[in-house]
Amino acid sequence: MILHGYWRSSAAWRVRIVLALKGLTADQVPHHLRDGGQRAPGYLALNPQGLVPALVTDDGQVLTQSLAICEYLEEIAPEPSILPGDAAMRARIRAAALVVAADIHPIQNLKILRRLRDLGQDDQAWARQVIEDGFDALEALLADTPGPFAFGAAPTLADVCLVPQMANTRRFGCDLRWPRLQAIEAECLKLDAFRLTAAEHQPDAE
Amino acid sequence: MILHGYWRSSAAWRVRIVLALKGLTADQVPHHLRDGGQRAPGYLALNPQGLVPALVTDDGQVLTQSLAICEYLEEIAPEPSILPGDAAMRARIRAAALVVAADIHPIQNLKILRRLRDLGQDDQAWARQVIEDGFDALEALLADTPGPFAFGAAPTLADVCLVPQMANTRRFGCDLRWPRLQAIEAECLKLDAFRLTAAEHQPDAE
Repeated sequence: MILHGYWRSSAAWRVRIVLALKGLTADQVPHHLRDGGQRAPGYLALNPQGLVPALVTDDGQVLTQSLAICEYLEEIAPEPSILPGDAAMRARIRAAALVVAADIHPIQNLKILRRLRDLGQDDQAWARQVIEDGFDALEALLADTPGPFAFGAAPTLADVCLVPQMANTRRFGCDLRWPRLQAIEAECLKLDAFRLTAAEHQPDAE
Repeated sequence: MILHGYWRSSAAWRVRIVLALKGLTADQVPHHLRDGGQRAPGYLALNPQGLVPALVTDDGQVLTQSLAICEYLEEIAPEPSILPGDAAMRARIRAAALVVAADIHPIQNLKILRRLRDLGQDDQAWARQVIEDGFDALEALLADTPGPFAFGAAPTLADVCLVPQMANTRRFGCDLRWPRLQAIEAECLKLDAFRLTAAEHQPDAE
C-alpha cells in the first residue's frame, strides 16, 4: 500500500496510527501542504479534494478520507479491533471520532484558516474556539466511559482521532482544560503506534 | 427508538432516510434550532454537542453524530444495505459520505454561519464557496462509478448524505454545475424514503 500524506497533517497521522496498531505497513509519499503540493495536477488526479491522506491499495484502488481509510483497514485487518463491542458501543466510538473528524478538524484546517486570514480575520482565535467547543463536548461525551483509553482497555478509533487533534490543540495555544482527554492522550502516547507515528518522526518533518 | 431532530437539519434528514430505507420507525422529537432549542439544558444533557440528530435506542442508549447513527442502523438492520460491496467499495462509499458530512456541512452549518455574521462577514458567500469546493470534488470522485445512484443500482450512505446537502445547496443559491450529482438526486427523489423524509414534510416544518 502507498500512503499519501504530510508529516503535520493530523488526518494522515490517524491513518499512520491504525496501520501501526494493526502491524500493517505502507510506503509513504509526502505532499508539502504549505507549498500547495496537494493541489498539484498529479495529486488532484488521485484525490480531487486535494487533501491528504489518500491510500492506494495493493490492487491500485485509491481511497480517500481518513475515517473511511481507517474503516477499510479495520475490515481487511480486524485484529486488534479499533471498533470493538456491540452496535451501540461501535456507534459511540464512531461518534467520538466524528466530533474530531467532522466538527473540529475540517473547521480549523489549513485551507479554512487561510480563507479567514484572507478575510482579515484572526484565524488563530477561530481555531481555538472551534477546538475548545468540540473538546468541551467530547470531554462530556466520555465522562462515563471506562479508561484508561477513551472506551476502555485498548485504543479505538476515538483515540486515533483524539491524539492528533490534541497536538493541534497545543499548536494553537488552547487552554488545556480537559483532564479526561489529556489522561487518554498520555495513555496513548505510551504506545509506539501513537508515539512513533507523530509528526516529528516523519521523514518529511521540518 | 426516539429521534431528536429538526425539520431543516440536513444531518437529521440523513437519519430519517436510513430509517425509511430499512423500514424502521422512530418517534420524532423536534428541537427548534433557530430558537436555540438544542442549547436547552435538557437537550445538552442528552447530547453535550448541542447538535441534532440524536437517537435514543430501545434500551435507552443515546447515540449522536448522524454518520455514527447511520452505521448503527446498518448494523442492527443490515438489509437493504447502505454499505454494500467489498472493503474498498465500502471505503469509497464512506469517503463520498464524508466529503459532505465532514468537509462541507460542518463548515456551513447554522452555528458557523452565525459566527461569521458576528465577525461581519458574508456568511452566504462563505457557504456557497464551501459547498462548491466540496461538490466539485464529489462530482469528480463519482465520475467513474455506475449509476443511477452514486454507487450503482441502489442508494447507499453516499446518496443519503448527498440529497440533503443538495437541498442546502439550493437554499444558498449555489450555481448548480454538477450534472452527475443532480442526476443522482433526481433518482433518489423518486423513492419515498428520500422524498417523504424531506424537511417540508416534517411535523415541525414552518
